[in-house]
Amino acid sequence: MERGTTPHPTLSPWHGERVSEGDGFEMTMTLPFPSPGPAAELERGAVLTPNFNADGLVAAIAVHADTGEVLMLAWMNAQALRLTLDTGEAHYFSRGRQVLWKKGETSGQIQQVTEVRVDCDQDAVLLKVRPQGDGGACHVGFRSCFYRVVEDGRLVERAD
Amino acid sequence: MERGTTPHPTLSPWHGERVSEGDGFEMTMTLPFPSPGPAAELERGAVLTPNFNADGLVAAIAVHADTGEVLMLAWMNAQALRLTLDTGEAHYFSRGRQVLWKKGETSGQIQQVTEVRVDCDQDAVLLKVRPQGDGGACHVGFRSCFYRVVEDGRLVERAD
Repeated sequence: MERGTTPHPTLSPWHGERVSEGDGFEMTMTLPFPSPGPAAELERGAVLTPNFNADGLVAAIAVHADTGEVLMLAWMNAQALRLTLDTGEAHYFSRGRQVLWKKGETSGQIQQVTEVRVDCDQDAVLLKVRPQGDGGACHVGFRSCFYRVVEDGRLVERAD
Repeated sequence: MERGTTPHPTLSPWHGERVSEGDGFEMTMTLPFPSPGPAAELERGAVLTPNFNADGLVAAIAVHADTGEVLMLAWMNAQALRLTLDTGEAHYFSRGRQVLWKKGETSGQIQQVTEVRVDCDQDAVLLKVRPQGDGGACHVGFRSCFYRVVEDGRLVERAD
């Protein structure tokens, strides 16, 4: 990648600000998305202006493209969302490890994205995906991460 | 409510820690949920131990109980989750206003909850709900908050 468009670990969120690296060198990141505008534009506008939180993240819900089943809830920074839109494969940001990750890179559960939606205030996205590999989405081994129901205060596994 | 079990605005998250009020007085909150354990318990255990983030919140996805359509993504603190489980009506926590709110209290779009699920690491919950009132869930007027599809980088309203 060219210098100037390379994701840089000191930039969080990856949001296109002019940044100083402390040695007088400045570079301008590619702006992946415009900044959010007022409510009317956020809610009814035609421009994707993700409303990243203080950590530079939006929530991302993945549902199965064929069944609508909710598979998982994860997080995206600007780079993850941009890569998801550009490649058609779901990328997320790990809050625990603080790294970008491509879903399925090790498990084979690549998520081919058939549709991306955004909610009214643009702080959550909804992906319709087709999981590859064994067809699952959860590292525990279930098809969906939501394999437990709360019943009388207890959790019951029910992967139906 | 009895003193000692009353939610207190200085406690965030409402998580049951022993807290000092600064004048030497200490009280113990009712523990709404046990603290999260190790991964094996979080993932396969039968105990609901929500994994609240640094702000005391978990993500909550609401889907329509009859159609499975994803309606909205919101947030819950311990009190909102407890009230949702105890009353069968969805309660959330507003990050912007920093208050607990009952969905539909002003709009009439009360959400009757038919099922609550939790994900593998217990930092997200999935509600199956039946919206009352006009049957919608979004303050903008659409049935679902996810009424816009990203197409060629633009947002297109498509409430299908």
